[in-house]
Amino acid sequence: MKTLLLIGMGAGDPEHITVQAIEALNRASVFFVLDKGPITQDLVRLRLEICQRYIRNPAYRVVQVNDPKRDSATASYTAGVEHWHAQRAEVYARLIDSELADGACGAFLLWGEPGLYDSTLRILERVREQGSSAFDYHVIPGISSVQALAARHRIPLNGIGQPIRITTGRQLCADDLDNVVVMLDAQCAFEAFVDEDLDIYWGAYLGTADEILIAGKLRDVCAQIKQAREQARQRKGWVMDTYVLRRRSP
Amino acid sequence: MKTLLLIGMGAGDPEHITVQAIEALNRASVFFVLDKGPITQDLVRLRLEICQRYIRNPAYRVVQVNDPKRDSATASYTAGVEHWHAQRAEVYARLIDSELADGACGAFLLWGEPGLYDSTLRILERVREQGSSAFDYHVIPGISSVQALAARHRIPLNGIGQPIRITTGRQLCADDLDNVVVMLDAQCAFEAFVDEDLDIYWGAYLGTADEILIAGKLRDVCAQIKQAREQARQRKGWVMDTYVLRRRSP
Ligand SMILES: C[S@@+](CC[C@H](N)C(=O)[O-])C[C@H]1O[C@@H](n2cnc3c(N)ncnc32)[C@H](O)[C@@H]1O
Ligand SMILES: C[S@@+](CC[C@H](N)C(=O)[O-])C[C@H]1O[C@@H](n2cnc3c(N)ncnc32)[C@H](O)[C@@H]1O
Repeated sequence: MKTLLLIGMGAGDPEHITVQAIEALNRASVFFVLDKGPITQDLVRLRLEICQRYIRNPAYRVVQVNDPKRDSATASYTAGVEHWHAQRAEVYARLIDSELADGACGAFLLWGEPGLYDSTLRILERVREQGSSAFDYHVIPGISSVQALAARHRIPLNGIGQPIRITTGRQLCADDLDNVVVMLDAQCAFEAFVDEDLDIYWGAYLGTADEILIAGKLRDVCAQIKQAREQARQRKGWVMDTYVLRRRSP
Repeated sequence: MKTLLLIGMGAGDPEHITVQAIEALNRASVFFVLDKGPITQDLVRLRLEICQRYIRNPAYRVVQVNDPKRDSATASYTAGVEHWHAQRAEVYARLIDSELADGACGAFLLWGEPGLYDSTLRILERVREQGSSAFDYHVIPGISSVQALAARHRIPLNGIGQPIRITTGRQLCADDLDNVVVMLDAQCAFEAFVDEDLDIYWGAYLGTADEILIAGKLRDVCAQIKQAREQARQRKGWVMDTYVLRRRSP
């Protein structure tokens, strides 16, 4: 039997790694790192730095996986993602067959929390259902960018006894505005709500040396955030940001 | 200036602690632990065990705080909580004045993630606004019970590109059922939806030696969960459980 560990590494700060994740890193002999092209080279590097810092026995192998590109021309978003997942399942199945010996332990180094907008778990489940590769797998939770954001701004995620919504830039809608965490937003979706009475707590490159934090009344800081985001994106070639929008309490 | 660290300790598994939290534990000389009566003595003990395991210099002090009881007779839930927070702010202000020397560093050991249904951050903000005690504070994120639950059941928290809701037993409603994480549910609120076509992923005492996991079609496992929960509650004197409800995909 082969074992796969899906290790949440934290979302930028190497000190956000857990003791359990460090133990898991030290159990694995092969590391699979997804490479989504030049934009995420920095993220691959960050994860490997974390490995170097916490792995006691340097006799490990890193397998960099070329992630199939998602076809954005497909009819619907969901169909596009489905097709992409099927392709990735094939790639993963091949990797598990060819790169992992029987009885060996491999690890996927995942950004942040494995359960939060990360498809690895779903794809491995698909590989297992297809039945060609036999393996067991475990999930090791990690500090997400949402938690890094809340900690740096020193804000609770929920109102007293109130629900929390986490959503994507694409799905953000007016109903969410009482209190919502937004991820995966390439379009500054917050701008559509600049006339509402909202607070925003925004963070980019959280936990890294490039971290940027901006908070305030959305109306007052909207332009500043857009500008900071665009400048950083141009300078580094990519940007990852997350924010909380919250209706101002009277 | 005094410094306070709000340290997320994980929600049961001592290995869920982060490197940053261990560093923070080792910076503080005084630890404040809330005591909410006999039911949570176990939780206090668990946190102190974590301290013992990870603190290198044993010359620290533990201050156990008697948490004022929440008055459930108050008119509204929110008013009740407000009043309780005001009382706790007084207790905290006194502690900071009397137990923490100038220049010293104290820590609150918080269960799970400090930003998730934990009032310490809100109360310290209130103490600071009242202005009598001068201190700075930092938040150190921790693995929440939600993450422990998802990891143990090996499930993603979100549907592909879909939003996530986290809510309380009290607030759970039919609109949430596509995909919702429920916490703070003393009443088995899931039972009201037993006729819907839902999956449930339930966990109690996650990360501890007493961990119980049950998953399946809500209809099939509802009674089993209620029974396991009640038996465990009677045996241990308290129970903490969390679950995901999710509409079955066709
Ligand atoms: C594919 S999702 C993965 C999320 C990850 N699993 C987590 O737990 O944070 C990527 C999104 O996470 C957010 N994100 C991840 N790391 C971040 C960071 N260091 N700073 C700000 N946002 C981040 C951004 O919203 C980004 O678009
Ligand atoms: C006051 S809230 C605190 C949540 C905590 N800050 C966290 O991040 O998990 C307490 C609720 O968290 C959930 N919880 C905390 N620890 C748990 C555990 N070890 N197993 C199951 N549920 C837990 C339960 O729903 C419980 O009612």
